[in-house]
Amino acid sequence: MRPITITPDYMPTAEGSALIEIGNTKVICTASVEDGTPAFMRGSGRGWVTAEYAMLPRATVTRTPRELNRGRPSGRTAEIQRLIGRSLRAVVDRDKLGERTVHVDCDVIQADGGTRAASIAGGWVAMAAAVKQLHDYKAIRELPLRAYLGAVSVGVVAGRPLLDLCYEEDSRADVDMNAAMTSAGEFVEIQACAEGRAFSREQLSELLSLAEIGIEQIIQKQKDAIKI
Amino acid sequence: MRPITITPDYMPTAEGSALIEIGNTKVICTASVEDGTPAFMRGSGRGWVTAEYAMLPRATVTRTPRELNRGRPSGRTAEIQRLIGRSLRAVVDRDKLGERTVHVDCDVIQADGGTRAASIAGGWVAMAAAVKQLHDYKAIRELPLRAYLGAVSVGVVAGRPLLDLCYEEDSRADVDMNAAMTSAGEFVEIQACAEGRAFSREQLSELLSLAEIGIEQIIQKQKDAIKI
Amino acid sequence: MRPITITPDYMPTAEGSALIEIGNTKVICTASVEDGTPAFMRGSGRGWVTAEYAMLPRATVTRTPRELNRGRPSGRTAEIQRLIGRSLRAVVDRDKLGERTVHVDCDVIQADGGTRAASIAGGWVAMAAAVKQLHDYKAIRELPLRAYLGAVSVGVVAGRPLLDLCYEEDSRADVDMNAAMTSAGEFVEIQACAEGRAFSREQLSELLSLAEIGIEQIIQKQKDAIKI
Amino acid sequence: MRPITITPDYMPTAEGSALIEIGNTKVICTASVEDGTPAFMRGSGRGWVTAEYAMLPRATVTRTPRELNRGRPSGRTAEIQRLIGRSLRAVVDRDKLGERTVHVDCDVIQADGGTRAASIAGGWVAMAAAVKQLHDYKAIRELPLRAYLGAVSVGVVAGRPLLDLCYEEDSRADVDMNAAMTSAGEFVEIQACAEGRAFSREQLSELLSLAEIGIEQIIQKQKDAIKI
Amino acid sequence: MRPITITPDYMPTAEGSALIEIGNTKVICTASVEDGTPAFMRGSGRGWVTAEYAMLPRATVTRTPRELNRGRPSGRTAEIQRLIGRSLRAVVDRDKLGERTVHVDCDVIQADGGTRAASIAGGWVAMAAAVKQLHDYKAIRELPLRAYLGAVSVGVVAGRPLLDLCYEEDSRADVDMNAAMTSAGEFVEIQACAEGRAFSREQLSELLSLAEIGIEQIIQKQKDAIKI
Amino acid sequence: MRPITITPDYMPTAEGSALIEIGNTKVICTASVEDGTPAFMRGSGRGWVTAEYAMLPRATVTRTPRELNRGRPSGRTAEIQRLIGRSLRAVVDRDKLGERTVHVDCDVIQADGGTRAASIAGGWVAMAAAVKQLHDYKAIRELPLRAYLGAVSVGVVAGRPLLDLCYEEDSRADVDMNAAMTSAGEFVEIQACAEGRAFSREQLSELLSLAEIGIEQIIQKQKDAIKI
Repeated sequence: MRPITITPDYMPTAEGSALIEIGNTKVICTASVEDGTPAFMRGSGRGWVTAEYAMLPRATVTRTPRELNRGRPSGRTAEIQRLIGRSLRAVVDRDKLGERTVHVDCDVIQADGGTRAASIAGGWVAMAAAVKQLHDYKAIRELPLRAYLGAVSVGVVAGRPLLDLCYEEDSRADVDMNAAMTSAGEFVEIQACAEGRAFSREQLSELLSLAEIGIEQIIQKQKDAIKI
Repeated sequence: MRPITITPDYMPTAEGSALIEIGNTKVICTASVEDGTPAFMRGSGRGWVTAEYAMLPRATVTRTPRELNRGRPSGRTAEIQRLIGRSLRAVVDRDKLGERTVHVDCDVIQADGGTRAASIAGGWVAMAAAVKQLHDYKAIRELPLRAYLGAVSVGVVAGRPLLDLCYEEDSRADVDMNAAMTSAGEFVEIQACAEGRAFSREQLSELLSLAEIGIEQIIQKQKDAIKI
Repeated sequence: MRPITITPDYMPTAEGSALIEIGNTKVICTASVEDGTPAFMRGSGRGWVTAEYAMLPRATVTRTPRELNRGRPSGRTAEIQRLIGRSLRAVVDRDKLGERTVHVDCDVIQADGGTRAASIAGGWVAMAAAVKQLHDYKAIRELPLRAYLGAVSVGVVAGRPLLDLCYEEDSRADVDMNAAMTSAGEFVEIQACAEGRAFSREQLSELLSLAEIGIEQIIQKQKDAIKI
Repeated sequence: MRPITITPDYMPTAEGSALIEIGNTKVICTASVEDGTPAFMRGSGRGWVTAEYAMLPRATVTRTPRELNRGRPSGRTAEIQRLIGRSLRAVVDRDKLGERTVHVDCDVIQADGGTRAASIAGGWVAMAAAVKQLHDYKAIRELPLRAYLGAVSVGVVAGRPLLDLCYEEDSRADVDMNAAMTSAGEFVEIQACAEGRAFSREQLSELLSLAEIGIEQIIQKQKDAIKI
Repeated sequence: MRPITITPDYMPTAEGSALIEIGNTKVICTASVEDGTPAFMRGSGRGWVTAEYAMLPRATVTRTPRELNRGRPSGRTAEIQRLIGRSLRAVVDRDKLGERTVHVDCDVIQADGGTRAASIAGGWVAMAAAVKQLHDYKAIRELPLRAYLGAVSVGVVAGRPLLDLCYEEDSRADVDMNAAMTSAGEFVEIQACAEGRAFSREQLSELLSLAEIGIEQIIQKQKDAIKI
Repeated sequence: MRPITITPDYMPTAEGSALIEIGNTKVICTASVEDGTPAFMRGSGRGWVTAEYAMLPRATVTRTPRELNRGRPSGRTAEIQRLIGRSLRAVVDRDKLGERTVHVDCDVIQADGGTRAASIAGGWVAMAAAVKQLHDYKAIRELPLRAYLGAVSVGVVAGRPLLDLCYEEDSRADVDMNAAMTSAGEFVEIQACAEGRAFSREQLSELLSLAEIGIEQIIQKQKDAIKI
C-alpha cells in the first residue's frame, strides 16, 4: 500500500470535503447538501446520494481532452461515478437522511492509478462531514451513517496478486479489481475484470484478502480524519 | 434458472447473430466485422471487440423514453456496454483476429431482469459465428476464441441467495451480482453491489457457486447453438 | 406485393403492439398510452398521437451506426417519424381520445425496403389495440378510430411502375412514392419524389392506382389481425 | 396567388443568391459552391446539391426560440431541408456538375405560409446563378440544369381548394400539399397530408391543377430573374 | 466612418425592430417582449434584457457552416451575445421595466467588419421601439430607457488608429477595440485587445477619442430613427 | 491587493504548471505542448496558444452544476477562455514557437473573485515554464516570450475605485474591469463593463492606474517564480 494521506475540510466552502492522496494519486472530494431529491423518489421521505467524477486535463501524463468538448461524459466516467454513488449509498441510512440530496464531487488532480477507489474513500469522508454537520445543526435527529467505507484497487500483474496498483502496474494487469468494504468487514462493491486473462475462484479469494488488508489501512486513516 | 433458448443466425444479414431468451427476457445480438481498429490501437496488428446495448422503449413494463431524445447514453447504458465489451474481449485472442473490429450489438426486445448477462451470453454466440465465418472464408488462420462464455445474474433477496433474478426479484434484491465465466470454469467479470445491505465473503462465495451452476447451463445451450 | 404477415399483441407488456412483416422487412410496433398531452395542446380536451422510428444497427446489409452516437436523429429519421405520426393522427378522433398521448414506437428489426409504409400499417394495429383497450376498460366512451389505415411504397424503376419496392429496387428507382390510405379509400399522405427523373400526372396516377391495390391487401391483413 | 417578387443577386458575396417574396413571406436564398462532395459519393465524378433551412426567431408572429439553443434541428426543419435538397437535385445533371457541392441556404426573414415552396423556388434561382457562374468561368463545360423549378403550397380550407396558403389559411387547412414542378410541366415532389380530413383522388387532382397554375407564375418570375 | 443607415420597424411582426447598415455590414435587429424573467431573478420585480447573435452562412465572403450543425454556439458567438446583452442592460432601468424579458435578436445578413458594434446600435433601436410600445399601451408607467446607446469598432492598423474597421482592415489590425457609449457621453463597454501588438495608455486614449466621434454619428442616426 | 502566492511546477506531470492564489481565489494552471496546430493555421510555420477554463463544482459558495451535464460550456466560460487565450498569445512570438500548440488549462479550485485575471497570470507562468523547457531541450532556438504578463480585476464599488475585487465586492460593483498588462507597461487586454452605471473617461483612467499598481505586484511574483 502506497502512503495514504487524508486532509479533511480541504475546501472550506463545502459542507464536507477532503483531499485524499494515495501515492501520487490526489483527489479533491466535496459533499454538497441540497434540499429535495430527484423526481423518481420525490415524496418517499428518503434521501439520495449521488456522485460525480472528473479529472483535470493534466492529471494524466499526457493531456486528456476535457469531456465537455465532446459534450458528454465518456463511458469510463459514467461507469466510475455510478460505482462511487452506489458504494456511498450502501452505508447511508437514507430514511434518517430525510428528503435531501448529497452531491459528492470527486475531482482528480493527479492520477497515478486507483482513482476510483480513492474517490470512494475520500468521498466518504466528505459525505460524513456533511451529514455530521446536518446532525450538529439538528437538521436530522440521528447520524445516517452505518459504517466507515474504504476502497482499494488490487490486481494480478505478471501472475502475482498486487495491492494498490499504480498506473504503470494497472496498465500491465491481467486482472483488475476494485473493492469497497465497510468498517464492519463487509463488502458493498466488488468489480473484478479480466481483460488479459480469466481468473479462478482461488485468485479471486487472494485478491479479496489483499483488498481487506489495504482497506483496513484506509479506514484507519478515515478514523483519524473524522469521528462518526 | 428460467428456461433458456438461443436461436443462432437470427438476423440473416449479419456476419453473426443470435436471439437469446431467458425467461421473458429477449435480446437480439448481432456481430458485425469491420476492417481496421479504433485510432488508439491502429498499427498494433491486434483486433478489437466492442459492444453496444440498447432497449426498445417498450421492452419495459412502462415505456422508457429513447436515450436519443436526450442526446446521449445514460450512465446505466454506458456501464453495461463497457461490461459486455470487456467480457467478450477476455475470451478473444486479439492477435489472431488481426486488425479488425467486431461490433456486437445487443438490443433488448423484452426486459425481465438479467439483460446484461443475457447480452454477454447471446453476444458471445453472435461473435463466435462472425469469427467462425472469417475462419471459414480463410480470412484468418486460427479461430481466435479461447472459450465459450456464459453470464448470469444472481442476488440476495429477502436474505436468500437466488439464481437468475427476474425484474421483480431484482428490484427487491439487497445484493445484486453479475458474473461472466468461461467454459474452462474461470471468471472474466464479477460485479457485485449492495444497494440495500453489505455482504460478507461467505455470501459472495454462495453467490459465485450459484452463478457457476447457472452459467454451466447457459454454456450448454451455447454448445448446442454453435460449435467452436 | 410481397407476402404480408401481421402478428398482433407481439409485445405483451404494451397496451397495443404488432409485428409486421412485408417480405424481408420486419418492424416491431408498440403503442403506449400516457395521460396528458404535450404542452402546446394542454387543456384543449383533445388527445395526441406521436410516433418514433428507429432501426437496429444490423437491420441493414452493412451495419448502420446508432444515431445515439452522434447525439441526434438523422434528417431521414426525423422525416419518417413525422410522416408516421401525421398519418396515424389523420384517422383518430382526438376529441374522443381525451387528454391522452399515444406513443407509437416503430423499431425496424430488418430493413428490405418499405419500412416507413410498414411502420404506418403496423403502427396503426398497435394504436388500434391500445385505444380498444381504453374503450374496453371504459376509460373512453367511443372508439376514436375513423378507419383502418394502410400504407405502401410504390415507384418507377427502369421506366415501369412497381408496387412494394424492396431495397434493391428502391435504390434504382427514378420516382419513389409512399402513400397512406384509409379503409374508406381516401388518402391521408402522399409523398412522391423524383431524385432520378421528374414524373408526369399520368405516371402519378398509375402509381396511385398501384398503391390502392397494395393498400387494400394490407388493410385486409389488418382486419384479420384486429376488429374495430 | 399572392404577389411574387424575385430579386436576383441579393447577396453580392455569394456565388448565387436571390430574395424571394411571396405575399408577406420573404426568404433569402444563397448558393455556395465548394470543391468535393460528401464522403458517401466521393470519387464518383458526380456532384451534390444540399440545402439548409432556417427562420429568424422573429420571422413568426410570436418569437420562435433558435434551434441552436436546444442543440439540434427540429423534426420540421429536418423534413423541410431534405425536401428542398431533393427537389433541387432533381433538376441538376450531377455528372455535368462534376465533384462539387452546391450548398443552398434558405433563411426565412418573414414567414406567412409557403416558406418551403418559396425556398425551393428561390433556392433554384440562387443555384442556377451559381452554376451559371461556374459555366461562365469555364469550370464546367455544359450548364448542368435540366429545367426551371417552381413550387407552391395548396390546400383544402373549409372544403374549398386554395392556392398559395398564407399562415392563417394554412393553420385551418384540412389538407395541405406542397408541389414542385419543372418548366417542362413535370413534377419532382408532391407532399400531400391530411391532418384534419382524408382526401380523395379527385381532390388531389384539383389540388394538382391549382398547383400547376401557381407554379407557372413562379417559373415566369424565375425566367424574368435569370436566363438559363 | 462608413455610411450609416438605420431603418426602423423593418420587421412589422416584432414589437420593435431595425435594419442597421454600416458600410456593407447589415444586421436585422428585433426586440420581442415576454412576460416573466429567467429563474435566477424571478420575484425581484425587475426586468431582464438578453441578446442573441447569429450570422447567415453566407454573410461572409466564404460560407461559414451553421453553428446548429455542431450543436452549440461558438465561443465567438457566446462572447458577442453576452457583450450585446450587457451593453443594452446598462441603459435600461430594469425596475421600471417590471418582470418582463426583452429578447433582442441580431441576425447579420452581411458581415464586413463591426458586426458586434452594429448589433448593439441596431439592437438598441429595436429595444427602444419595443419598450416605447409598452409605454404607449400603458403597460408600464415610465419609459425605462436612460439614454441612447451607440457602439463602434476602432483599431490600430499598420501603426495608425482607424475608426470603423471593415473586415479587411480588421484582419490586419494590431489592436482591436469595441466601445459602447451613451448619449450622455459615458461608456458602458470597452473591450480592447492586442493579438498583434500590446498598446500603451496613449494609444488607448486616441482610440477612445476616435470611438467618441463615430458613436456620436451613430447616435445622431438613432435620434433620426426613434425619439425617446 | 490581496496576498499573492505563485507556486511554480505544481503539477509535476505537465510541461509547465503553477498554482496561483490571490486571497481565497486558487487556480491550478498547466501548460501542455503538442506538435502541430489547428487546421486553420496549418502549414504557416507559426505556433498557437489556446486556453481552457473551468471551475470545480464547489469552488463557489453554493455548488455550481458541471457544464458537462448540459453538454456545452456556458457563455461565461466561453468568454473567459477566449480572453485568457488572446492575452497569452499577445506576448508570444508565434514564429519562434514553430508549429506547436500550447494548451493552457486553468482549473479554479476556489473562487473568490478575480478568477479570470488569476488564470491569465498563473497561465502565463505555466506557459513560460513549458516554452522554457522546449528551449532547454533545444527544440526551439529562441525563447518565444516577449514579456511577463500580469492581470487584475478592478472596479467601481459604491462610487469608489477598488483594486482586486473579491466576490462580495464584485457582486456589488457598478463598473467591472479586467486588464492584462506586460512587464513593459503595455496593455494586451482591457475589458470594462457597466452593468450598474455608465462610466466616464476619468473613471476609466483611475481604474487603469489602479490596475497598473496591482499588475506590477503580480509581475514581481512571476519574476520570483520563473526567470525568462
